[in-house]
Amino acid sequence: MRVLKKFTYISPKAKNLMQANELAKQAFSEIKEAILKNCTDDSGKFTINSSEKNCNGVVPVKEGIYRYLEECCEWFREKPLAYFENAKKGGPIDVYKEFGDKNNPFSVGLEFETGNISSAHRSMNKLLLGIQHEDLQMAFLIMPIKKLAHYLTDRIANYEELAPYFLLLENFPFVVFGFDADNYDENKETTPPFPKGKDGMSQRNIRKWQNH
Amino acid sequence: MRVLKKFTYISPKAKNLMQANELAKQAFSEIKEAILKNCTDDSGKFTINSSEKNCNGVVPVKEGIYRYLEECCEWFREKPLAYFENAKKGGPIDVYKEFGDKNNPFSVGLEFETGNISSAHRSMNKLLLGIQHEDLQMAFLIMPIKKLAHYLTDRIANYEELAPYFLLLENFPFVVFGFDADNYDENKETTPPFPKGKDGMSQRNIRKWQNH
Repeated sequence: MRVLKKFTYISPKAKNLMQANELAKQAFSEIKEAILKNCTDDSGKFTINSSEKNCNGVVPVKEGIYRYLEECCEWFREKPLAYFENAKKGGPIDVYKEFGDKNNPFSVGLEFETGNISSAHRSMNKLLLGIQHEDLQMAFLIMPIKKLAHYLTDRIANYEELAPYFLLLENFPFVVFGFDADNYDENKETTPPFPKGKDGMSQRNIRKWQNH
Repeated sequence: MRVLKKFTYISPKAKNLMQANELAKQAFSEIKEAILKNCTDDSGKFTINSSEKNCNGVVPVKEGIYRYLEECCEWFREKPLAYFENAKKGGPIDVYKEFGDKNNPFSVGLEFETGNISSAHRSMNKLLLGIQHEDLQMAFLIMPIKKLAHYLTDRIANYEELAPYFLLLENFPFVVFGFDADNYDENKETTPPFPKGKDGMSQRNIRKWQNH
C-alpha cells in the first residue's frame, strides 16, 4: 500500500519525541513498513477492486497490516489499558508493543479504524486517554484515505474526514497515517472484491496480549 | 428533572472561568435551570415510564430543555462553527448563545447527546475543537445518567460511560451534566412512554441561528 506525506499527521510532540528517542522512531518505522508491505501480489503491490462503491470488506486490509506487525515485529493484539481494566470501561487497544524495558517502559498503541467517523473519534480518544494515564508513551491511528474508503465498507471513516480534529492531538505524541491502494482495478475477474464481515479473517490464532 | 452533584463534571478551567467571569456563571445557571425546569406535570416534576428497557424516545426529553433555553434565555439552535464552515466538515452546534458583545465575545455551545457512545465522543470533540479555534469560550454537554438511559432509546450514551474520558477535558472550559428523571412509573396508563423517532418533535418553528 501507499502512504503519502500529505496524508500523514505527525504531532509536534511526536516529532520531538522521534528526534530524541530511538524507540519512538522504531515504532514509526515498523508501522509505516507494515502498511507499505501490505500487498495482494508477488510484486509487492496492493490492488483493490473498484467496480462499485463500498464493494470491498475492510477486514482483509487490516489483517495484512496486523499480521506483519505480529509476525515480523512482535506486536501483540488486544491489550487492555490498565486504566480501563480498573474502570471496567472501554475495549482493549487493537495492537500494542512494549519497546522499552521494565525500568524504562516505552509502550505504543495502534488502532486501525474500521468503523464510522463517530467510532474514529472514540478510537482517537481511547488512545489519548492511554497517553494521559501513561499506559502509552506514543499512539498511532491508521485509516484509509477518502479515495480508497469509497470502495470499502459503507460509511467507513476516512483520513480527510477526521483531519480537522488533529488539532486536538497537538500536545500528545500522536501519529495518523492515511493509506491508499497502489492500484485500482474495475475487473472482478482479475481482482475479486474483498469479502465483507468477518469472512476475511484468517482462522489462525492471533497473538493476543492475554496469552503473553 | 434532577442534576446530582456526583453526575456533574466541571473542569478546573471551567471552575476558574466561572469564578472570574459572570457570563460563564450565567451560562452554567441557564443550562442547569433548563434541565431542572424540564417537567411532565404541573408540579414541576419529570416522570418517565419505566415499564421496560428502551421504551421511551429521547427527542421529547431534549425538546423540553431546548425550548426553555430558546424561549426563556434566547439561545439559538444549529449554529455552524466558523471553522467547520470553512472546512466544509462537521455539523452545527446544537444550541448556542453569544453572551458577550462584539468587542468582547463570550460564546457558549451546548450539545445534548442523543446518540451512542461513539457519537458522544464526536460531540465532545466538536465542542473541544470549537474552543480550540476560539469559536467558543465555553462548552457544555448534557446526557442522561445510566439509570435513566436504560429506559431511553437503545444504546444511547450515558454519563457514567463517558466519564472516564472527562480527563481529556481538563484543560478546556467544559461542563458535563448528567440528568435524571424525578420519578419512574411502570404504569403506561398514568405515564405513557415518550414516542420514538422524530414523532416527539413539536411542529413549531425552532429558533435557528441561520434566521438570526
